[in-house]
Amino acid sequence: MKSSETKQKLLTIGLDQVSVRGLSGVTLGQLASASGLSKSGLFAHFKSKEQLQIELLEEMARTADRTVVVPAMREATGLPRLKALVDLWFGWPHRAGLEGGCPAAAALFELDDIDTVVREHVCKLEAQWRLLLLQIVRDAVAEKHLSAETDVEQFVWELGGIYLAHHASSRFLRDNEADTRARQAFDALLARNRATHGSDSVQLKIGSKRDVHD
Amino acid sequence: MKSSETKQKLLTIGLDQVSVRGLSGVTLGQLASASGLSKSGLFAHFKSKEQLQIELLEEMARTADRTVVVPAMREATGLPRLKALVDLWFGWPHRAGLEGGCPAAAALFELDDIDTVVREHVCKLEAQWRLLLLQIVRDAVAEKHLSAETDVEQFVWELGGIYLAHHASSRFLRDNEADTRARQAFDALLARNRATHGSDSVQLKIGSKRDVHD
Repeated sequence: MKSSETKQKLLTIGLDQVSVRGLSGVTLGQLASASGLSKSGLFAHFKSKEQLQIELLEEMARTADRTVVVPAMREATGLPRLKALVDLWFGWPHRAGLEGGCPAAAALFELDDIDTVVREHVCKLEAQWRLLLLQIVRDAVAEKHLSAETDVEQFVWELGGIYLAHHASSRFLRDNEADTRARQAFDALLARNRATHGSDSVQLKIGSKRDVHD
Repeated sequence: MKSSETKQKLLTIGLDQVSVRGLSGVTLGQLASASGLSKSGLFAHFKSKEQLQIELLEEMARTADRTVVVPAMREATGLPRLKALVDLWFGWPHRAGLEGGCPAAAALFELDDIDTVVREHVCKLEAQWRLLLLQIVRDAVAEKHLSAETDVEQFVWELGGIYLAHHASSRFLRDNEADTRARQAFDALLARNRATHGSDSVQLKIGSKRDVHD
């Protein structure tokens, strides 16, 4: 197996472990035993635990990009894209084939009080993600799908809360109603910020569940 | 020092560690070194890591009860109590003197995919907390402060999302606007469910920041 293939295999196994056990739950030793490599063989690919964790975060970002962002960006600018993004974002780890939950959501609580280069990297990814959400919501305002009075920062802040509540209720509480609750909350957030003179051409299939392979 | 005093000291130090590093970040060895006891001395108080974690969760529940629930229950039934609870709940670990964030919020993401007796204990505490919130919101409906059409389960679900978003933005992102964002989101949730023929006697100081020692 080529070195680059071995590394990709390690990242795939490692990301699955992060999704289940969090960033601190993955160690070079565990990854070595899960991948059947020696620990010294692993050191050829990752110089330190911090480097491993940062590369696993990058692997997560690539996976989320493929699973969530790329298909959402195919939709029309404005509300159609915002709706598609939310449908694709909520529950994405399962659709990406990960065994556990969203590594980024978990890292927000795991690393809130621990100052490391890994925390800085999560901050960077979180900022990029927020910028994307802000742009998509701003576009929906520019398209007059959302009201010109929409507080875009507040909208994105509240949407993040709905995501975290959905994560906790679907993954921790294993509540079958998590999807329905999240949809109701998102619909209420949209209703509060909807343009009153919206175009008739924007008819959304609210309540429809999108599959990543659509 | 009496055995019960030693144990309380261990729980106090341990809870502070949980708030910073999460449940898995506290070990008998670390707690021994932080408290100046031998590891075998610790075993007189906690038989296993799981027992230690469960007792730390109980210590958290007692602390949150003292800091949040007891003062909130002194307020009048209905909206005054709901508003007081939210003011006291958001940011409670700091007011309780903990160095880090909310151990329960972190545990929702740390233990979502790990089935242990500790996870079961977090589930139990989470269910008790949700029952308390449901009762307080139901009382606000009964008092006609909130609309009779209020979906109480949905209200509590969304309130949980606002709490998690506030935790992530105040602790992880260290955003100074976290309190303002949370208050706006909560006000919007209230406005959506407000009774249209409410009593004039319920005048709330929306925007006022309550101190735990009020």
